[in-house]
Amino acid sequence: MRLIEELVNNFKDKELALPIWFENDSLKVLDQRKLPFDEEIHTFTEVEQLGEAIRSMMIRGSGAIGICGAYGIFLTALKSNGNAQAVKEAGDLLKSTRPTAVNLMKTVDEMVSVAKGSGEDLISEVEKKAVIILKRQLEFEYKLGEHGAALIEDGDTIMTHCHSGAYGGAGYGGRALSVIRTAHEQGKNIHVYTCETRPYLQGARITALELKKFGIPHTLITDNMSGFCMSEGKIDKIVVGSDRVSANGDLANKVGTYMHALAAKEHQIPFYTATSSHTIDFNTPSGKSIEVEMRNPSEVTQFKGMPIAPEGTNALYPSFDITPNHLISGIITEKGVISAPYETNLKKVIEKVEV
Amino acid sequence: MRLIEELVNNFKDKELALPIWFENDSLKVLDQRKLPFDEEIHTFTEVEQLGEAIRSMMIRGSGAIGICGAYGIFLTALKSNGNAQAVKEAGDLLKSTRPTAVNLMKTVDEMVSVAKGSGEDLISEVEKKAVIILKRQLEFEYKLGEHGAALIEDGDTIMTHCHSGAYGGAGYGGRALSVIRTAHEQGKNIHVYTCETRPYLQGARITALELKKFGIPHTLITDNMSGFCMSEGKIDKIVVGSDRVSANGDLANKVGTYMHALAAKEHQIPFYTATSSHTIDFNTPSGKSIEVEMRNPSEVTQFKGMPIAPEGTNALYPSFDITPNHLISGIITEKGVISAPYETNLKKVIEKVEV
Repeated sequence: MRLIEELVNNFKDKELALPIWFENDSLKVLDQRKLPFDEEIHTFTEVEQLGEAIRSMMIRGSGAIGICGAYGIFLTALKSNGNAQAVKEAGDLLKSTRPTAVNLMKTVDEMVSVAKGSGEDLISEVEKKAVIILKRQLEFEYKLGEHGAALIEDGDTIMTHCHSGAYGGAGYGGRALSVIRTAHEQGKNIHVYTCETRPYLQGARITALELKKFGIPHTLITDNMSGFCMSEGKIDKIVVGSDRVSANGDLANKVGTYMHALAAKEHQIPFYTATSSHTIDFNTPSGKSIEVEMRNPSEVTQFKGMPIAPEGTNALYPSFDITPNHLISGIITEKGVISAPYETNLKKVIEKVEV
Repeated sequence: MRLIEELVNNFKDKELALPIWFENDSLKVLDQRKLPFDEEIHTFTEVEQLGEAIRSMMIRGSGAIGICGAYGIFLTALKSNGNAQAVKEAGDLLKSTRPTAVNLMKTVDEMVSVAKGSGEDLISEVEKKAVIILKRQLEFEYKLGEHGAALIEDGDTIMTHCHSGAYGGAGYGGRALSVIRTAHEQGKNIHVYTCETRPYLQGARITALELKKFGIPHTLITDNMSGFCMSEGKIDKIVVGSDRVSANGDLANKVGTYMHALAAKEHQIPFYTATSSHTIDFNTPSGKSIEVEMRNPSEVTQFKGMPIAPEGTNALYPSFDITPNHLISGIITEKGVISAPYETNLKKVIEKVEV
């Protein structure tokens, strides 16, 4: 068994929910688009197949995409019998699949930089680096979970939005679900409300599936029900993931997050985002300077390919929204939980980040 | 052509979107469950068929259900050749279909009370009363529209939630859509954002269809996008319907309404409900005393019969939520627009209501 297989098989004796793994000299990738009904697993023997899987959203989530850089380069090193040129080309290919994925750029560059020499030596160096990267991502999720779980009390009901979990990371719990999973594993009696997250239903499809896998009691609601649930006293804490955190602590996350945060403020319910210190973007002074990506409106007018509105209906699909810092009770990172004032406190954390 | 047919054909020269009408000695009912793709129309010759249509939600909305009382009794009078006993039994049957529908109880009682004597005399009295009731509902929608439209300015973008329109009323525009339709007919250049309204998608299916029929430009969004749209300055006013208004002005309306109202408050966007003076319930002191009906959670875990979450997922389906009075800028009724303090101002209006 290869080193990289041993790592995921023995990580802190935890059952992992893997978005990608290595097996029999090939890569296995779970098709996340078909969850929760089909857990379809694809076997890839060429890096081109992995590139296509990233492009087509078969595999998604910043952590998961990041480790694809490690797995894809390792696969190429093996298949090319340690050919540095092939490795370099694979790196270019992987980087081209998602040019905005910072994690992917970074891991590919790390991997390619150690692909020196040739043959078994090159393969061995590449595998060691892949293990380091994968372990780093798993340790990140685990540490994030420990810091976040300290905020969760026995008996809490926690609401989350969209999917910020294991399949979007390296397999422990990604971000928001690392916090929830760790609290559960600490023996805290928790219950999770998962918002379905229209239009793509990541909450209903993927978050609910992971909660089921991890044995965590949960209830599905539509996104517009969170205000009602809060007014009924059903929610104690909110933990969501993050697409980006700006220098002042404003949060860009899946559309709908902002409305949950407004309702949480009204009901004095703590609202947290679970993120990585690398997701905090000091080049973005505030949420106002983040341009919201508009996606294909047919996602809104259709449901699994079936139209739900009259033909020709116009629609809008902003993929995320901005939650201003004053609605955020704390930013959970692998370095600890950061509280306001974010302008100064985020900087204190980032200075400790190893590059 | 019968009087009742002439009324809907000539109401103020307006094109009506009818949920139910009389034609060739029978009732025609649009199957609202199949909108917007099939505009399936059923022909009923017996009051039992209409009763079943109410029970099965083929026809829905308080105004529409109310006029079913008039149409159902008129049909029975005709088919029984003016038999008072048959009319009385039809009244009991109709009332049993939806015991909580105040409008239906009221119109049935009005209709049955004039069904005296027999034969043509009875039929004629019953038809005259049916015309009065139908005309009253149409005039209600029209007046409500005029009062509400005075709040809408040229160039406004108006957001609405769920369906509060013609098919839920007598055909002009129901409640919220009467306001929007009237503003449009006044030549105001308006645009409507319609929230899809999970889980039953009334906004995507029915509101969008009516807006299309009335030629009013509109955009569909998912419920969780309203906060984003408000933060982008895309929304000038919000107008929703109402299931119930309590004595202090708290509003019970389709789940999600409360979250839109919270976001509107944050962005200082006027938030109105369009309602009937009869929907204001002085026996309910505040929203706190309204029990929220919990519906079948399978509406949340499924979508048009297709599961969207892992098997066995628990869900919650509160059918409406409560928006507290301090979030409401005005209550639009057929008597005028009522503003805070609602405790005193609502009473002033109700005192003018004819019983």
